[in-house]
Amino acid sequence: MTVLDRLSLNQATVKRLGVAAAADLCARHGIGAIGLWREPVAEIGLDAAVAAVRAAGLRVSSLCRGGFFTHADPVDRQAAVADNKAAIGEAAALGTDTLILVSGGLVPGSRDIGLARRMIADAIGELVPVAQSHGVRLGIEALHPVFAADRCVVTRLGEALDLAAQFPADAVGVVVDTYHLWWDAALSSDIARARNRIVSYQLSDWILPLPADTLLGRGHVGDGHIDFPPIAAAVAAAGYAGPIEVEIFNEAVWSAPPDETATTVIDRFPQAF
Amino acid sequence: MTVLDRLSLNQATVKRLGVAAAADLCARHGIGAIGLWREPVAEIGLDAAVAAVRAAGLRVSSLCRGGFFTHADPVDRQAAVADNKAAIGEAAALGTDTLILVSGGLVPGSRDIGLARRMIADAIGELVPVAQSHGVRLGIEALHPVFAADRCVVTRLGEALDLAAQFPADAVGVVVDTYHLWWDAALSSDIARARNRIVSYQLSDWILPLPADTLLGRGHVGDGHIDFPPIAAAVAAAGYAGPIEVEIFNEAVWSAPPDETATTVIDRFPQAF
Repeated sequence: MTVLDRLSLNQATVKRLGVAAAADLCARHGIGAIGLWREPVAEIGLDAAVAAVRAAGLRVSSLCRGGFFTHADPVDRQAAVADNKAAIGEAAALGTDTLILVSGGLVPGSRDIGLARRMIADAIGELVPVAQSHGVRLGIEALHPVFAADRCVVTRLGEALDLAAQFPADAVGVVVDTYHLWWDAALSSDIARARNRIVSYQLSDWILPLPADTLLGRGHVGDGHIDFPPIAAAVAAAGYAGPIEVEIFNEAVWSAPPDETATTVIDRFPQAF
Repeated sequence: MTVLDRLSLNQATVKRLGVAAAADLCARHGIGAIGLWREPVAEIGLDAAVAAVRAAGLRVSSLCRGGFFTHADPVDRQAAVADNKAAIGEAAALGTDTLILVSGGLVPGSRDIGLARRMIADAIGELVPVAQSHGVRLGIEALHPVFAADRCVVTRLGEALDLAAQFPADAVGVVVDTYHLWWDAALSSDIARARNRIVSYQLSDWILPLPADTLLGRGHVGDGHIDFPPIAAAVAAAGYAGPIEVEIFNEAVWSAPPDETATTVIDRFPQAF
C-alpha cells in the first residue's frame, strides 16, 4: 500500500463535474475513493449516484454535508434536523460511514455565540440515534474563524472535540481539515486527544492573497503556507488510517481541465506526508 | 467617573489625521486619551508629538506598534529588535507604559510556524530588560487567524498568554482586541487567566462581507456581529481598569469627516458595556 491508496478526491475540487463525470475522472486516474456532495447527488438522484460510484469501482469516503443548525425560528431548526436525518440516510445509501457537518454561524439577528453553540449541540443530540441506526458517524468540522459569524461558530479542533465528547464515539467524531486548522498552536495536542474521534482528514493549502470570496482561497497542496507533514504525522499517530480527501475551493482550479486537476492532486499528494 | 472617561481614540481610526490634528480632535470631543502610531509620530518628530498631546491635555494609552520579529536573515532579526528598542524609548517619551506588538507571520521562505513562534519568544526576551528599564510593558497582541501566515502567528489570547507567561508581568502583557478574538470559545476563560497581564483593551466590530483588503474589515461598535458586553465584563473581572481604545481599520470610516467619526465612536462606546 502506498500513500496514494489513501487518496480520495472530494467532489468540490472538480465542482463543475456531476457525480458520474467525477467518478469517471477518479477511475481513469486510479483514485480509489471520492467524497461526494449532496447537491450533485440530488441532481442525478440517489440511486443513480450509487450506481455511478459502483460502476466506477469507488469507495465513498464521506458525504458533504449536513449541519447549518442555527436558526432563530424553531420550525427552521426542526427542518434542519429533519434534513440532516435525510442526509444520514443518503450517506448510508452511498456506502459511506461519514457525514460531514458544517454547524452554522451566529443565529440570524443574534450576537450570542453561546446560543449558537447550544443549538448545535442540541441538534447533534437529536441526530445521534439516527446516525447510530444507520452506522454513520457525524463529523464535526471546525471551520477557520474567518467563517465564524456566517458559517460555523465551531472554530477550533479542540472545540469540535469538546462538542463531540458529549456524544458516543461511534456516532460523533471530528474532521481535521488543514486549511481550517493549520494556524492553531494547540493543533498537535488536539489531534492527539482526538484519538478514535477523527472521521475525516482533508487537505488543501492556505494561499495568499485571499480572494474576494474568502470561501475560495484554497490551493493545491504545496501552493501555500501550510506545513503538511507534521499534521499528517499527528493524524497518523492518533490512529486515523482512513481515506484522505483533497478538497479545494478555488475558482482557478474549478476552471482548469478536470484531468489536469486530478493529475496535480495526485502529483502533490505525497508532499503532504 | 463614567465609562466615557475610559475611552481612548486609537489614531488608526482617523488614519488621515496627523498627530496634532488627531490630538486636537480628541480634545474637542472630550476624549481624554489617544493611542498613537509610530509612523505619524515620526512624521512630525517625537518632540513635536509629545508637545502636541500635552497641549491637548491627553494621556497616551499606547504606542502602536512594535513586533515583526520573524525574518530569515539574522541581520534583519537584529534590526527588528533594535527598532523595537527604539520603539520602547518612544513609548516612554510619549508618556505611555504600553507598546503594542504585532509579532510577525511565517518566516519568509519557511512554512515552519514553530520556528516563527520561537523567533518571537527570543526577540521578546531580548526586549524585556529594555522595557523594564523604561517602565514600558510590551503588549503581545493575538491577531485573528486570517492573518497568521503574513502578519502574526500568535492567533489566540491563550497563546499570547502562554508566551507572556515566560517573562515578568511588569515587562510583558497581552492585548485584548475584540475584532481579533471574539470567535474563540476559550476567550472568557483566557481573559480570566490574563489577570495582571492585560495591558490594553481595544474595540472594533467584525463586519461582513469582508472587504477585498481583509485588514480593513472592521466596524464601529454595533455595526457587526460581536457581543461586546460579556467581553467587557470578563476584562473588568480580570482587573483591567485602564483606557479602552477604539481602533477601526475601515476605508469608509477613514473617508468620513473625523468629527463625525469621533461622534460615532463616543455614541457607540456605551454599547460595549
